[in-house]
Amino acid sequence: MTPTPTREDKFSFGLWTVGWQARDLFGEATRPVLAGVEAVHKLAELGAYGITFHDDDLVPPGSSSTERQQIIDKFKAALAETGLVVPMVTTNLFGDPVFKDGGFTSNDRTVRRYALRKVMQNMDLAAELGAQIYVFWGGREGSEVDFAKDVRAALDRYREGIDLLAQYSIDKGYGMRFAIEPKPNEPRGDILLPTIGHALAFITQLEHHEMVGINPETGHEQMASLNYTHGIAQALWQNKLFHIDLNGQKGPRYDQDLVFGYGDLLQAFSTVDLLENGAPGGGPTYDGDRHFDYKPLRTESMEGVWESALANMELYLTLRDRSHAFRADPRVQEALAAGGVADLNTPTLDPGEDHTRLLADRSAYEDYDLEVARGKGYGFARIQRYAIEHLLGVR
Amino acid sequence: MTPTPTREDKFSFGLWTVGWQARDLFGEATRPVLAGVEAVHKLAELGAYGITFHDDDLVPPGSSSTERQQIIDKFKAALAETGLVVPMVTTNLFGDPVFKDGGFTSNDRTVRRYALRKVMQNMDLAAELGAQIYVFWGGREGSEVDFAKDVRAALDRYREGIDLLAQYSIDKGYGMRFAIEPKPNEPRGDILLPTIGHALAFITQLEHHEMVGINPETGHEQMASLNYTHGIAQALWQNKLFHIDLNGQKGPRYDQDLVFGYGDLLQAFSTVDLLENGAPGGGPTYDGDRHFDYKPLRTESMEGVWESALANMELYLTLRDRSHAFRADPRVQEALAAGGVADLNTPTLDPGEDHTRLLADRSAYEDYDLEVARGKGYGFARIQRYAIEHLLGVR
Amino acid sequence: MTPTPTREDKFSFGLWTVGWQARDLFGEATRPVLAGVEAVHKLAELGAYGITFHDDDLVPPGSSSTERQQIIDKFKAALAETGLVVPMVTTNLFGDPVFKDGGFTSNDRTVRRYALRKVMQNMDLAAELGAQIYVFWGGREGSEVDFAKDVRAALDRYREGIDLLAQYSIDKGYGMRFAIEPKPNEPRGDILLPTIGHALAFITQLEHHEMVGINPETGHEQMASLNYTHGIAQALWQNKLFHIDLNGQKGPRYDQDLVFGYGDLLQAFSTVDLLENGAPGGGPTYDGDRHFDYKPLRTESMEGVWESALANMELYLTLRDRSHAFRADPRVQEALAAGGVADLNTPTLDPGEDHTRLLADRSAYEDYDLEVARGKGYGFARIQRYAIEHLLGVR
Amino acid sequence: MTPTPTREDKFSFGLWTVGWQARDLFGEATRPVLAGVEAVHKLAELGAYGITFHDDDLVPPGSSSTERQQIIDKFKAALAETGLVVPMVTTNLFGDPVFKDGGFTSNDRTVRRYALRKVMQNMDLAAELGAQIYVFWGGREGSEVDFAKDVRAALDRYREGIDLLAQYSIDKGYGMRFAIEPKPNEPRGDILLPTIGHALAFITQLEHHEMVGINPETGHEQMASLNYTHGIAQALWQNKLFHIDLNGQKGPRYDQDLVFGYGDLLQAFSTVDLLENGAPGGGPTYDGDRHFDYKPLRTESMEGVWESALANMELYLTLRDRSHAFRADPRVQEALAAGGVADLNTPTLDPGEDHTRLLADRSAYEDYDLEVARGKGYGFARIQRYAIEHLLGVR
Repeated sequence: MTPTPTREDKFSFGLWTVGWQARDLFGEATRPVLAGVEAVHKLAELGAYGITFHDDDLVPPGSSSTERQQIIDKFKAALAETGLVVPMVTTNLFGDPVFKDGGFTSNDRTVRRYALRKVMQNMDLAAELGAQIYVFWGGREGSEVDFAKDVRAALDRYREGIDLLAQYSIDKGYGMRFAIEPKPNEPRGDILLPTIGHALAFITQLEHHEMVGINPETGHEQMASLNYTHGIAQALWQNKLFHIDLNGQKGPRYDQDLVFGYGDLLQAFSTVDLLENGAPGGGPTYDGDRHFDYKPLRTESMEGVWESALANMELYLTLRDRSHAFRADPRVQEALAAGGVADLNTPTLDPGEDHTRLLADRSAYEDYDLEVARGKGYGFARIQRYAIEHLLGVR
Repeated sequence: MTPTPTREDKFSFGLWTVGWQARDLFGEATRPVLAGVEAVHKLAELGAYGITFHDDDLVPPGSSSTERQQIIDKFKAALAETGLVVPMVTTNLFGDPVFKDGGFTSNDRTVRRYALRKVMQNMDLAAELGAQIYVFWGGREGSEVDFAKDVRAALDRYREGIDLLAQYSIDKGYGMRFAIEPKPNEPRGDILLPTIGHALAFITQLEHHEMVGINPETGHEQMASLNYTHGIAQALWQNKLFHIDLNGQKGPRYDQDLVFGYGDLLQAFSTVDLLENGAPGGGPTYDGDRHFDYKPLRTESMEGVWESALANMELYLTLRDRSHAFRADPRVQEALAAGGVADLNTPTLDPGEDHTRLLADRSAYEDYDLEVARGKGYGFARIQRYAIEHLLGVR
Repeated sequence: MTPTPTREDKFSFGLWTVGWQARDLFGEATRPVLAGVEAVHKLAELGAYGITFHDDDLVPPGSSSTERQQIIDKFKAALAETGLVVPMVTTNLFGDPVFKDGGFTSNDRTVRRYALRKVMQNMDLAAELGAQIYVFWGGREGSEVDFAKDVRAALDRYREGIDLLAQYSIDKGYGMRFAIEPKPNEPRGDILLPTIGHALAFITQLEHHEMVGINPETGHEQMASLNYTHGIAQALWQNKLFHIDLNGQKGPRYDQDLVFGYGDLLQAFSTVDLLENGAPGGGPTYDGDRHFDYKPLRTESMEGVWESALANMELYLTLRDRSHAFRADPRVQEALAAGGVADLNTPTLDPGEDHTRLLADRSAYEDYDLEVARGKGYGFARIQRYAIEHLLGVR
Repeated sequence: MTPTPTREDKFSFGLWTVGWQARDLFGEATRPVLAGVEAVHKLAELGAYGITFHDDDLVPPGSSSTERQQIIDKFKAALAETGLVVPMVTTNLFGDPVFKDGGFTSNDRTVRRYALRKVMQNMDLAAELGAQIYVFWGGREGSEVDFAKDVRAALDRYREGIDLLAQYSIDKGYGMRFAIEPKPNEPRGDILLPTIGHALAFITQLEHHEMVGINPETGHEQMASLNYTHGIAQALWQNKLFHIDLNGQKGPRYDQDLVFGYGDLLQAFSTVDLLENGAPGGGPTYDGDRHFDYKPLRTESMEGVWESALANMELYLTLRDRSHAFRADPRVQEALAAGGVADLNTPTLDPGEDHTRLLADRSAYEDYDLEVARGKGYGFARIQRYAIEHLLGVR
């Protein structure tokens, strides 16, 4: 039976997802404009918990301050009416031609200053709406021509920008946490901070590194052939999984933004298992909103848009249920134990053991029975077989 | 005119590169065993500066301690005779079936202990030979089955292993620096620390993080569709480019280990430019050995092996010469200036400017002339055209 | 409930799959030699229908003719005892160093002649064992250096080789059909006939093209980012799907040879649906053996090998069951009808309509209501949602 | 010295290339509309030979018939004035929302009929302008949902469409040749006829197959990890290289449409060598227009657009010059001979030899000296080294 999403499941959607008019590089829009208010109502109806937006999604660029206020007021009213929350907000620093060479790292200093101001303005709105997470996706921060971008300088400017905005949040008492969203390429030939790892490394260089984490997107990692579950596991290990963007992608190709699970379904299963149940040996789970950043197919009318929005949530819930059953299955537990999965939590060294004592342990090396260890089977095939059975519900 | 390599160019080769017998997943060896001593003499003759090795490359596994010593003595004699140095040494933690599930992160604790001991033994030899860099490529640290590897625990064990070995180097007075080499996949379905970024992030969690950097390989990054030049730029930015592995790769596919430049030649040009000349706006260059980690084509006899070893060095030198000419060309300088490349070194904020003052600067936002900024051309096409002209020597 | 494989399901395995000793480019074998006879018995026990092999899998190169005959006799006895059949046989033209530059297309003519003879010898054995399909995977036919391989000439030689062997089968009355297996790269940098399409195009140029089709492998197409289901659909459309290699692959990277369905599970579902049920609008299904060409994980002992062999069959059967339910579901039928899926079988032109009459039909163009057609939603999101529900068994 | 393009070099550009306003999936246009007339004049000035277009590039959709005629008249006047020709024309069957599920293969029959009419109308204009080649890029012919597209039926409809239009060209005496342009994905998740091979195979099923060939694009093949030079070699081998689209791409990722050579420069060299000089052992060269299908970087103003247009031609010419020198170099000729490159043109069988005689030749198998053949080096490393030297002009 397909589960039904509820507010407690904490599902959220970008306004730009269900609101995508399906204009792409090769063709014109196939769908009408979707007003924020309508999105709020429809998402609430489907069982969602939150809605997120870029400044320009909610308030069309060029709106007067009166128009802006009217839009915001109506949006807030819709939130109040439905109970939907705004867990995260972000800035569009990629759509306007002014950002053609980036925002924080444009070669043009006036653009960099403009970008900072655009973010600050929207942070004020985010705070007003109660958003706890502010996302930075630097889609235009990058280059196509290696010789035309000083990456060292660009990272300096990136840091300068984030540092300033962190200070702004602190000084204004916004209490926000920042989440950087990596992506390897598209729309730029190569984007700065291309993977979870690069973003995590960058964050360590920030002044207020403690308030900055990441917002990894399934498809962005998979565009770089990387295992998304592994990536979020490292982020959790470093306590930096501040937010999450779930969707689907068929490996290295254009950014598909499919429904969650419609790319690598098996990996989606391990992702949900990790988010919901934590690592096999324990460790933190993810407790933020389950945020979908997908694009409804261009072939669809609004009916298909809502169908696919629902599909994201339903599939997540099904995977969640299946992951619980997987963890609870005694056969699985036996297989995990046999494969030494939990043993990896045991330190390699004995308590208090140092290199001198390790060197003195002849059983570790000189007398180690290599032949036995070489012949051992880990039984991972069995674990995978059980995982598939649970995923498909045949057990 | 093709330049001739000399010792001053600091080129080095892995013994396993020219010594690769060309046995692959689908076929048997096509070349005979190459003795370390012969490799030393031949590389010296070709103009190389150094040779590097995995423990098992130099001393075949299963050698008695007498045989081991004889091999090492002969190798040292050859080094003394030729003047070749050993700038880097590394451990083979991937070839023996015992490492089928990894070394430091195997689910089997006895394997983890064995792995540490194997490294320690080889570190002693590395120190004896004067190696300053010790590389860690965790080719088997990873998984094919998400549910069979607790990545959080695996990173704990990885850290534990590196911490112990760092302490060992310190306590023994070896003065080594460690360099972690990332790779996304192959031979494991997904390898831990898959990119430069993930490794940089991991390093920040280490006890002796100051003595650990990275050893990025051209092809490994490109297997993940990442820009290698960008990656080493971030590593330089974090002062973590401790060593380097140069080769060639044609994007996401099997690990090709082509001659340097035979994959993405244009990016190889920007790589050499960065290593030799630093970022456009200044910053550190790379001063370690230029290390080639490639595989001579399986179609070749030893004649072709040496031909390709030479080709690596020659191509690097040609790119170096061309990069100097590129930087010196007044037309290039003019185009870089016009494109704002150097301006990116200018902080976005004025000296002492904070968010309050930025908010007060109406020229940054309210009065900003968006139309001008939107219409501006950055002239990157011209920079790339000049780069190509210099690369091809038509200017 | 997981279904149990039986002979009627026509599952077959390459001897080289369960017999893979797990020696890879980076490490030594982790498993012992598996005798052909043991493989036959074990596969029969698990419910398989057939076993296939390369000449060198069954008879180790260098065996005397007596040894060869003994091996064959024992193998035949095991077949007789178990009822297992040999639906397909193929030649190893890639393992021996002599084939380092290919078999049929080596630049060395003596190698080309040797390759033809090696195939002929094995065709005799294949005929003796009753194989109806003879597969050609030209894994070494290709190049790493564009300038070192005359592709036009190579295709001439490829054709010459296949033409000769086809004539041989005809003249000997073997009644075999040939199946060419495409692959884009690995072990060669670029392999000739890299995709289903290239092989289908090549076949049209053969003398006995009617007896030559293709043997597409799931992972090989996916290494080129191609949709395997689409590929076999085109092969079926051209009546050239003579055989099939099922396995799993995570997009463009090294050749993983995972268990079928462990790569792109969703696409595996559409593959099974097409093979079993034919195109939605009708058309041929596939009636040959369902052949698995996978590699058991290197972490596994023989227990894990048989576990994974079973997993291939079980997953196929589950997908088959689910595809039947999908097709039979009235909601699915309604959604397919609403999406015009079956309508695509209706010719675009009316019966007897030519371009003159089409030009005269103003309703087709001049009076066509573009706005209606632009606003139409196809409902593909709904079809996919139903497919997922059936795949996961939640409906 | 950078060569200067002239009309004799037969360079052509799509109007949509230099006219691309740089609106992409993530951002708005950064450049103004470029009138066809201006493009003609500017391209002529730069040394181009031809200009090509989609119907909608030249005549904005929705133009009245009077406006349409005015635009065409002005365009023809510009052609007459400059001497620029229109070697190829094509149809936009992807931009209008009506084609969201394809043109010839839309699930909606009325769309299919509309698409045919749209092509016919533009073929009339193409004929009027003297175009000899008519290109079909079916960018929207495909699917994201496997279950929602009957590929068998779609290929029937594709064939029906091309057959009708071929008949139209014949009956109208247009004397055109058709060229199908393959692409693996983007904008559809999977596009029909995804590679050169699939298109070549499809063409064999057409009624007027003799008048239909292919128009392969560099980047489209490389998005599927395929070797473009190999692909056009197979097309030449089947006499189907009717037209060509040159550009650059960095492997499997979004469609970059870089300047020719800015992706895989080394492969661009072998492409030009093949087009200009034919296969090493002889065979046809390409004699159509050298057509660039690229997108000027979004960071550029019109100045950068023309800079990059010139860069395409200059780089092609440089590669052409270098390929001539490569072919003429005695050292290269010696290396090619030593590597057996030309020998591949020698049939594997002796004149008149059949399988019976081959079987009787003991020197081919029984007495074949395998050890010698196994130890042989082909010298491909040397050939590549020389190629690089010529490419870089260091020889």
